[in-house]
Amino acid sequence: MASIKPSLAKGTRDFSPLEMDKRNFIFNTLKSIFRKFGYAEIQTPSFENLSTLTGKYGDEGDKLIFKILNSGDYLSKAPADLLESKSSNPLISHISEKALRYDLTVPFARYVVMHQNDIALPFKRFQIQPVWRADRPQRGRYREFYQCDVDVVGSSSLLNEAEFILIYNEALLKLGLKDFNIKLNNRKILSGIAEVVGKPELIVDMTVAIDKLDKIGLDGVNKELLERGFTEADLATLKPIIELQGSNLDKIASMKTVLSDSTVGMQGIAEIEEVFAYVEKFGRADLLEKVVEVDITLARGLNYYTGCIFEVKTNEVQMGSIGGGGRYDDLTGMFGLKDLTGVGVSFGADRIYDVLEELNLFPQGGSERTKLLIVNFDSAIEDFTLPLMYRLREAGVAVELYPSAVKLKKQMSYADSKAIPYVLLVGDEEVSSGQLSLKNMETGEQEKLNMDELIEKLK
Amino acid sequence: MASIKPSLAKGTRDFSPLEMDKRNFIFNTLKSIFRKFGYAEIQTPSFENLSTLTGKYGDEGDKLIFKILNSGDYLSKAPADLLESKSSNPLISHISEKALRYDLTVPFARYVVMHQNDIALPFKRFQIQPVWRADRPQRGRYREFYQCDVDVVGSSSLLNEAEFILIYNEALLKLGLKDFNIKLNNRKILSGIAEVVGKPELIVDMTVAIDKLDKIGLDGVNKELLERGFTEADLATLKPIIELQGSNLDKIASMKTVLSDSTVGMQGIAEIEEVFAYVEKFGRADLLEKVVEVDITLARGLNYYTGCIFEVKTNEVQMGSIGGGGRYDDLTGMFGLKDLTGVGVSFGADRIYDVLEELNLFPQGGSERTKLLIVNFDSAIEDFTLPLMYRLREAGVAVELYPSAVKLKKQMSYADSKAIPYVLLVGDEEVSSGQLSLKNMETGEQEKLNMDELIEKLK
Repeated sequence: MASIKPSLAKGTRDFSPLEMDKRNFIFNTLKSIFRKFGYAEIQTPSFENLSTLTGKYGDEGDKLIFKILNSGDYLSKAPADLLESKSSNPLISHISEKALRYDLTVPFARYVVMHQNDIALPFKRFQIQPVWRADRPQRGRYREFYQCDVDVVGSSSLLNEAEFILIYNEALLKLGLKDFNIKLNNRKILSGIAEVVGKPELIVDMTVAIDKLDKIGLDGVNKELLERGFTEADLATLKPIIELQGSNLDKIASMKTVLSDSTVGMQGIAEIEEVFAYVEKFGRADLLEKVVEVDITLARGLNYYTGCIFEVKTNEVQMGSIGGGGRYDDLTGMFGLKDLTGVGVSFGADRIYDVLEELNLFPQGGSERTKLLIVNFDSAIEDFTLPLMYRLREAGVAVELYPSAVKLKKQMSYADSKAIPYVLLVGDEEVSSGQLSLKNMETGEQEKLNMDELIEKLK
Repeated sequence: MASIKPSLAKGTRDFSPLEMDKRNFIFNTLKSIFRKFGYAEIQTPSFENLSTLTGKYGDEGDKLIFKILNSGDYLSKAPADLLESKSSNPLISHISEKALRYDLTVPFARYVVMHQNDIALPFKRFQIQPVWRADRPQRGRYREFYQCDVDVVGSSSLLNEAEFILIYNEALLKLGLKDFNIKLNNRKILSGIAEVVGKPELIVDMTVAIDKLDKIGLDGVNKELLERGFTEADLATLKPIIELQGSNLDKIASMKTVLSDSTVGMQGIAEIEEVFAYVEKFGRADLLEKVVEVDITLARGLNYYTGCIFEVKTNEVQMGSIGGGGRYDDLTGMFGLKDLTGVGVSFGADRIYDVLEELNLFPQGGSERTKLLIVNFDSAIEDFTLPLMYRLREAGVAVELYPSAVKLKKQMSYADSKAIPYVLLVGDEEVSSGQLSLKNMETGEQEKLNMDELIEKLK
């Protein structure tokens, strides 16, 4: 076996114990909140039949799906002409029948359709699993990354939308964030605007342009709207909507004036009002003033969402959206199950990780780490330290004995590298007196404790 | 987009909420014990460079590795002659440079070598991730399944072996098993036996034959030994070892007699005695009588292990080993880092799942499920139920309100299908009296509680 210098596959990452600690802090926080709101975990396989995934993400998406080569003599049935002409693309379906999950949405749709007789609607599920994309890797963009989706299908109640606001708020607070906005829009409002302007066919062009308001300002948006087929008169109609200012209630009031002639637009406004009413009934009217922000420039996933649209941004660091989602009316149509409405949101775990890291918000002394290292001075003392270690573990304390009596300095640097918060120094003197020396690795302080006191302190 | 009837890729599984609940029970139990013993979690990417994996699992293993097709115009650099002759195997390295993880051991070795400057030895890690094999799927054998490995590298102390006995014992008890054996052998004892018989070159043949004692009996083993090159005289020497009976101490005493002339054999016995001494120091001499079983027919992974060998069997149901492992002296040699000793064990999560299922040992009312469903009789009552639900969640109770006021029967069957243990019935009368009707879905009992009593009961 030749010895090779190993490397990671491009765009992939190892996660060290300290990184896992932080990642698990994020995932565990989210999971416990999802469960409190009645969402249950599912998992789907890492690879699906290629036919399940192909055609769901557009031509560009199809190219980014990782295909798995068939096993065995995979070329035996490949058409000779495709091989001869080196036709990479047409050959794929002949030599690959499986592909890695590209997102969690299509596998979820497949799951719902396949298990439709076993699941009771509404089906509330969350799913936290890796997905794979053959993107060109770059800073912050990986070929393997986790998605974190929470969806309910089979319920049209806007209670679900209101609960997603509570979920986002609780999750981000629990993760340590203090200043963030949950932006809210409704696809029907965008349809209403296009209708009022008299150009419903230009809704996509309109939202693409409006979406850039932050970046290019009103003049830039107007210029783009003109290029995309709107008239000066249209711009005058659109102006009060694009420039919507003030509180959420002010915005809603303005929109009602502009959209009064559009049934669908007024319906979108009514949906937002109903979501607000639910949030108020939960006793959290404060969120509607401080956290939730109606933002009609929000056009995320326009071709997909049919009702409310969410996007979450932190105001504490420069970072794109850290979450988003919305209501869709046809998740499972691609697999032949029509008219199943759903609404869901996702959390951008990698971005949230970067935000917490930058703000230094990860908890110190992660709960998953070894809490105590017992220094090994002399294997003769193991008669004392092993029963002690047994008692500590019985009390639920994560503890280890350095497995050989090497130099103290090496043992201390081991504790450092594992971020172990306490070190116990047990020598002959400590064994005979029963007074053990516990060193706090962060403060450097040392205290004397007997065995019971030690267990009490650490458990 | 054509509508297709979806299916799972062959050999893969979806996990429903109730299955995830059970799987998480196993994984969480194991993780918390690993952490108590100072093991920390790492994760490696799902795919590795093909060159990292190839040649590590033998020719048969190489065939079972799932290869990922290169992206883009993957045929452009493929040799025309290989395409023309449809040479599937030689073509692989030209059209695939990545492959799915086949086990956790090789990626762990790569991890240790790549991060050798960042990790402090001994490095104690656990890893619970899926692996993929292009095996022919059959009952109980999947193409995607989880491995669950816990290893320490860089420590030759037999304290580690002793702790693995404690880990197995605690883990299996916590999972609810009552009657199991941790079988223990040592590769050096097997070497010693082959040495004493005078045929060290036949050690593999010998252990393969001895390994079948359970199945084919002593006569069968003897027959096979003769076929594999041993003489009648050898059989006479081997007989007392193969037929080793009695307590562990009896077996050790017999082995000492037989192996007294073999240095390596006596060293293997000494290692087992040292492991036993550690277990005794931990105060668990009872395990050496009731749970641990010295079994020199145990030959698991002979080409790999160099010291102690473990295998775990349950005696409560018919099932192959549910765990195993051992000490190896050259994990990272394949990547150029020599002489790094390690010892590790793994848990067979899928088999453990089947055992717990058969013995009905999964906890009732999994902690991860919704605890309370509030029945929706009338949306007007939401003014009462939403603040109640908010308070319950603040108290950490997983609760949901059925999102629309459909027929009671439908709501109750929803609670049933999600295995929600309690249902709250709130109508006008309950709202005005403040006495809420809580129904226990398992017993069918119903009781009246006010809001504070309800929170107290469920939290």
